[in-house]
Amino acid sequence: MRDIYIGLLGLGNVGAGVVRILRENRESIEARLSASVHVKRILVRDPSRSRDVQVDPGVLTTEVSEVLEDPDVRVVVELIGGLEPARSYVLQALARGKHVVTANKALLAEHGEEIFGEARRRGLSVYFEGSVAGGIPVLRALREGLASDRIESIVGIVNGTANFILDAMTRTGASYADALRDAQKAGFAEADPHLDVGGGDAAHKLALLSLVSFGRRVDPKLISTEGITGITRFDIQMATELGYVVKSLAVADLIDGVPCLRVHPTFVPCDHVLAGVHGAYNAVAVQSRALGRSLYYGQGAGMMPTGVAVVSDIIEVCRDILSFAESGPPPEAFEQIESVTPAPVGDLMCENYLCVYAPNVPGVLGRVSSCLGAHGVSIKRMKQETPDPGRPIEMVIITEAVAESNLRAAMTEIDTFDELTRPTHRIRMLPREAVS
Amino acid sequence: MRDIYIGLLGLGNVGAGVVRILRENRESIEARLSASVHVKRILVRDPSRSRDVQVDPGVLTTEVSEVLEDPDVRVVVELIGGLEPARSYVLQALARGKHVVTANKALLAEHGEEIFGEARRRGLSVYFEGSVAGGIPVLRALREGLASDRIESIVGIVNGTANFILDAMTRTGASYADALRDAQKAGFAEADPHLDVGGGDAAHKLALLSLVSFGRRVDPKLISTEGITGITRFDIQMATELGYVVKSLAVADLIDGVPCLRVHPTFVPCDHVLAGVHGAYNAVAVQSRALGRSLYYGQGAGMMPTGVAVVSDIIEVCRDILSFAESGPPPEAFEQIESVTPAPVGDLMCENYLCVYAPNVPGVLGRVSSCLGAHGVSIKRMKQETPDPGRPIEMVIITEAVAESNLRAAMTEIDTFDELTRPTHRIRMLPREAVS
Repeated sequence: MRDIYIGLLGLGNVGAGVVRILRENRESIEARLSASVHVKRILVRDPSRSRDVQVDPGVLTTEVSEVLEDPDVRVVVELIGGLEPARSYVLQALARGKHVVTANKALLAEHGEEIFGEARRRGLSVYFEGSVAGGIPVLRALREGLASDRIESIVGIVNGTANFILDAMTRTGASYADALRDAQKAGFAEADPHLDVGGGDAAHKLALLSLVSFGRRVDPKLISTEGITGITRFDIQMATELGYVVKSLAVADLIDGVPCLRVHPTFVPCDHVLAGVHGAYNAVAVQSRALGRSLYYGQGAGMMPTGVAVVSDIIEVCRDILSFAESGPPPEAFEQIESVTPAPVGDLMCENYLCVYAPNVPGVLGRVSSCLGAHGVSIKRMKQETPDPGRPIEMVIITEAVAESNLRAAMTEIDTFDELTRPTHRIRMLPREAVS
Repeated sequence: MRDIYIGLLGLGNVGAGVVRILRENRESIEARLSASVHVKRILVRDPSRSRDVQVDPGVLTTEVSEVLEDPDVRVVVELIGGLEPARSYVLQALARGKHVVTANKALLAEHGEEIFGEARRRGLSVYFEGSVAGGIPVLRALREGLASDRIESIVGIVNGTANFILDAMTRTGASYADALRDAQKAGFAEADPHLDVGGGDAAHKLALLSLVSFGRRVDPKLISTEGITGITRFDIQMATELGYVVKSLAVADLIDGVPCLRVHPTFVPCDHVLAGVHGAYNAVAVQSRALGRSLYYGQGAGMMPTGVAVVSDIIEVCRDILSFAESGPPPEAFEQIESVTPAPVGDLMCENYLCVYAPNVPGVLGRVSSCLGAHGVSIKRMKQETPDPGRPIEMVIITEAVAESNLRAAMTEIDTFDELTRPTHRIRMLPREAVS
């Protein structure tokens, strides 16, 4: 049996999971590959630290060169996270002819062009299944299962923290602040949750989904991104009354061949398959030409789920190494990746939930609806609520499907009205007839 | 670029889809493989028939030997369906050293041992993604993505016809007979729907899921199978009232290492992710050791979805051919498959919905509950309905979680009671805390 040696950068949570999974499934991995995978070197900061997994101390090193310059090591698994030094290490690994596996979405979303370009030039593979939706093999499904299909659109719940918070608000009636605190206590949210609740993490993942699905790279900073921090108990209560649940969705489709990407909270119809995604789970719904709708669901994060994804990538790279040893580099490496500016979101059409905060001034309702009408926004339904005595009135307006640019223009104008106590609050609505 | 020649047996619905997909995605397939895939020969009954797809008439043949004995053909794609002559053709193809791709679940479920054994002896691949859940790449996910994990259980909606009928009954309040007729009109049910609504088709697919997940082959005739033909409007209405939807589930788990398999209608909690699977869609929920819960969802049948799955398999076999040309046969071929008797279902625990049909005789309720009690079946909830005047009363009993054998013993005894007008009707319930 052939031996393949790999090196790990980092032995934190996911690293320990990877070592454990490789060990526990050694037999089935060997059966799959007709080869044996060995972890030869692991870069750590402190070799003396006690860890979740037992490792031969001789394998640990604090010198990155001992991993990157080891001629036996064919695959470098980057698990340190963050942009630097992860970026330099990955580029050095590629420069030394080593394939790369990583679960670092920020790194690939920010520096993907450089990293994939280097890999392509050198005929090496970079796999990153663990970077999106944890253990759900969605990138593999997009790339392989659908090599024979064309992806048309993607709608995903790709941030477990945001979903956990919105789900808790829906289930328990908690406020955003309380639900966030609970998520932090339960270990589902970081002390600084900005990247999760602000939508930035989802935008990173969406950029990678777009890359794999459409072969187009988009700078995540150019993705239209709205977080969930403004979602109120009242919004959740209105959603329930109207037969919806609020989810933070990452959406990608092609407009004239150009990816249109956006991350935003959304009213999802209760009987939609994405409405059943609870807690910290992730799901990605894909629309493709031949297959139609499909959906992949599972745990979006965690030591073992992400570890499974990383190990699957290691197996895949090993297959490349075994397959193409004599026939040249793997085909993946030759895929040209084009960087593009994402399509503008202004032309997108959808129904919207608007919450207009107003003191009970006669005429305000008329002024708001006239303004909407003037911008071509038709009202489908309207409701006036006074949730707490003494508080200003919350006026709920459901619009017909309208162009984003029209709605934004109307909202900008409405927010200049003196009668309104707070900026108008809007949540997009997924149509009832979409992906079920 | 290398050329790989394949032969098709059959050019019906799925066959035409395969030819079309190979043609439309030629570029991306070549990029993926660094090789070109050519359809060299297609077995058809009537070459003059007009078809959904244009094919060079020189490729068509009515002689199976022209496909199976062509030395250029490396892969035989069986798409004629049924047991014979499909079985003989597949065995002949293997005997001539050709890899096989098929979407024929009945063939593999019935003759899998013979076919996989022959492939193993000859070091050839048999891929069958299209045989379960159409275009959803669930077998690939189970086999590849989870090569580094251990599957513990599977719960699937794997028959689109049954799901279409139950979903229509739930949405429109239609009777079983009307919903079946609508499904037939819409092309979602065969003129003879027995295999779909009786659960036999789901049992075939479950046997294949069990094979891929656990490496154990079970004779589908030994799978405990209940169809949906007995589901009434009243059952659906009760399910809705109680916060459930009725779905036909195929369930597999391991009991002391032995697969326990069953197909039956089930009350699924409304907020369960499987409750959101509507129409003719399929979904397979997987519980595995490291990854936890995951779910794969999509179209379970149809020309293009099944075509995508078949083409994905063709690409996979081509990868094997390219990879192992010099290093020997693919590892898949060496996996030992063990045939086992499935574990008995008698010890399985679940809550149950019982519908007892009785004329309004005093004491019958007491007699039924005493009998349940005597068999160790505790009642959680009870409800008495008189849906139509003049009709006998329908008594609904929800049991606590009890062993299947106890419940069956109680039901057998209850059905001997003279007061009851019809056999007692039972539907298993999925617990609310399961896969969400």
